[in-house]
Amino acid sequence: MADILSAVLARLQMLSTSDHASVVSMNLFVALLCACIVIGHLLEENRWMNESITALLIGLCTGVVILLVSGGKSSHLLVFSEDLFFIYLLPPIIFNAGFQVKKKQFFRNFITIMLFGAIGTLISCSIISAGVIQFFKLMDIGSLDLGDYLAIGAIFAATDSVCTLQVLNQDETPLLYSLVFGEGVVNDATSVVLFNAIQSFDLSHINTESALQLIGNFFYLFITSTMLGAIAGLLSAFIIKKLYFGRHSTDREVALMMLMAYLSYMLAELFYLSGILTVFFCGIVMSHYTWHNVTESSRITTKHAFATSSFVAEIFIFVYVGMDALDIEKWRFVSDSPGTSVAVSSVLLALVMAGRAAFVFPLSFLSNLTKKSPNDKIDLKQQVVIWWAGLMRGAVSMALAYNQFTRSGHTQLRANAIMITSTITVVLFSTMVRFLFLS
Amino acid sequence: MADILSAVLARLQMLSTSDHASVVSMNLFVALLCACIVIGHLLEENRWMNESITALLIGLCTGVVILLVSGGKSSHLLVFSEDLFFIYLLPPIIFNAGFQVKKKQFFRNFITIMLFGAIGTLISCSIISAGVIQFFKLMDIGSLDLGDYLAIGAIFAATDSVCTLQVLNQDETPLLYSLVFGEGVVNDATSVVLFNAIQSFDLSHINTESALQLIGNFFYLFITSTMLGAIAGLLSAFIIKKLYFGRHSTDREVALMMLMAYLSYMLAELFYLSGILTVFFCGIVMSHYTWHNVTESSRITTKHAFATSSFVAEIFIFVYVGMDALDIEKWRFVSDSPGTSVAVSSVLLALVMAGRAAFVFPLSFLSNLTKKSPNDKIDLKQQVVIWWAGLMRGAVSMALAYNQFTRSGHTQLRANAIMITSTITVVLFSTMVRFLFLS
Repeated sequence: MADILSAVLARLQMLSTSDHASVVSMNLFVALLCACIVIGHLLEENRWMNESITALLIGLCTGVVILLVSGGKSSHLLVFSEDLFFIYLLPPIIFNAGFQVKKKQFFRNFITIMLFGAIGTLISCSIISAGVIQFFKLMDIGSLDLGDYLAIGAIFAATDSVCTLQVLNQDETPLLYSLVFGEGVVNDATSVVLFNAIQSFDLSHINTESALQLIGNFFYLFITSTMLGAIAGLLSAFIIKKLYFGRHSTDREVALMMLMAYLSYMLAELFYLSGILTVFFCGIVMSHYTWHNVTESSRITTKHAFATSSFVAEIFIFVYVGMDALDIEKWRFVSDSPGTSVAVSSVLLALVMAGRAAFVFPLSFLSNLTKKSPNDKIDLKQQVVIWWAGLMRGAVSMALAYNQFTRSGHTQLRANAIMITSTITVVLFSTMVRFLFLS
Repeated sequence: MADILSAVLARLQMLSTSDHASVVSMNLFVALLCACIVIGHLLEENRWMNESITALLIGLCTGVVILLVSGGKSSHLLVFSEDLFFIYLLPPIIFNAGFQVKKKQFFRNFITIMLFGAIGTLISCSIISAGVIQFFKLMDIGSLDLGDYLAIGAIFAATDSVCTLQVLNQDETPLLYSLVFGEGVVNDATSVVLFNAIQSFDLSHINTESALQLIGNFFYLFITSTMLGAIAGLLSAFIIKKLYFGRHSTDREVALMMLMAYLSYMLAELFYLSGILTVFFCGIVMSHYTWHNVTESSRITTKHAFATSSFVAEIFIFVYVGMDALDIEKWRFVSDSPGTSVAVSSVLLALVMAGRAAFVFPLSFLSNLTKKSPNDKIDLKQQVVIWWAGLMRGAVSMALAYNQFTRSGHTQLRANAIMITSTITVVLFSTMVRFLFLS
């Protein structure tokens, strides 16, 4: 068995230096994705597992195999650019979130969702940032600057909106479902916007004025990105309604919706706005207006095709993360000081819980003040569920952590390596533990 | 207007050296694709136009604009790798052809289709190769070796299977439709297999033995590739039937079908087989077995999602070809000797017509000998339609020509430049003229 693997790997390594590199890596990846879908489906009834964890574990196992066969040299065959995440994998996930959101409940609870998703994420981010600044100084981590601390806040403020929903039932608890899902997608967008605002901001000399500028920058990004997405969605509805009146063509309609959504994302990136927010609102507007102007087959096709793309993109991220998790380079620093790593992960988990508690309970109280009907109010039990359901960290956190702490997939600095391994630990731990308790 | 464009282009050129290069180029491309769909739809009733020509013309116009604004420096913003065609654009087109083929008519006329698609393409390729060897020696073209001549044969033996069908009606003329479509897809696959066999073959010392080896190589590729595709298709049907019995999940089914199809293509490429043939037969088997084991929504989704991907990939190729058609580098050689270029294009067009005539009429005669019912026989009028319908050259010819005669999108040699420009001329001319006469 090891001989065969060794031969295959030798061939793969020989090929990876030739033109065949992309072919080999894509083969391996596509085969792993297929395996994830099949195994994830088989394990569906197991309460410890979901598709994300399966994908992570399969990635880990593949990493171990490659590690053993290559004699400990590397655990991944390919180094992906971070652009891959932000240009190809994130857009379908976020667009689909906007496209599939139940609009009636979403707009009914719009204020509360926005409070949780936007203001809550800001609070959570501030608390985590403040916490890591305090605690990390006491530990021996290495050089991190203010920008890194703020980025950590944004990274761990991003919840996993999709896994979250696998444990809530839309029909039994419509209010909770809509709040948790709505918060999840707005939170995804907010944390990415926040992350970009922090990255593009000069933090070397900070004062009140520059802090206000940061907040102003955040709201400018938020509003322009939302507008761009809404305009793109409305434009697609207008084009399909006007041009295709009387004679519909499913393939053209689907192609146009897909391309317009992607165009809105890319335009936002071109003008340095938040593509995530743009494509999320483009998804909402498209499912509200465009979707009702197309043929029945186009409706079914878009609904499932978008969900499938999002599903595949997520599995892809998890397999990659699982594979990369074993990268020797990163764990070499960690194995020198295992205590520090455990401490960092524990501090981060505690801060994530505290940061979430710090906005869920106060903001629920605020939201309850504005509601008259007792049915619309969020009682304490529901508040606890909302707090607990949003503790999971997932693909967005991983993507942001890679963006901040690696250069072309490599981590040379000790501090960066610890941050990446801690992010992986937090994602794995929060996902597994939360599932165990809720289901 | 020119000032704005100039400013935009300056920005684009500045960006194209930075990380934003891919963002800018994708923006431009996605916007152009949207424009092609809308304009193509508006011009649908115009008998001179179809989507491919629209895409070509839009690419040409964009090329002119870039050329004027950049002061004649270049006509395209980006240099695509040829891998793009063969890894991302061709698989969805060919898979969709296999997936959408009417299997009843296809298998009923299987022998005839295979005769036309495989043997016919071989005959056509030999005649075109022999023709160019004869005629090009009389002209002042530059250095082309035997491999180039044979490649030209394979390039111009590839018909445009998709455009062909826009002028035939499946309900009025089922036999003709099935023959022309079936031949078209088998021909696509055959010409790519042939092209690869020629490229990978050592032509420096040719004799009877090596010629037999070439033919043996061709049949080996043909059979193993077909088998691999059929196995991948059957495997997907088996997995979906066994695992999903009783509890279906549309997104997983669609994802699995898509990934398995792509995996079959990539596996074929990995083992140096013909991915095109593999994915074509995978499409046929999937639509025959897998498709009947999935939910109703999965059926609608896969049908339209695959058609849409194929549609977008084709438009993409045509826009790119249109943009690239104006590349100064290529036409510089041509403008030195316009007579030669016209002569080369005319010779190629004549050879395409002769090569097609040389197999349609004899093979129809052979096919008629095996049929008993007069309804199944192909009469002379139908033979003429089949001959005429397959004269169009399209995306596959372009992709193969780029593969053979450019290095990373550039053409330094005079002979190569002439071949690329002649291919563009033949594609444009054959597409336009044929549409005019048939519709």
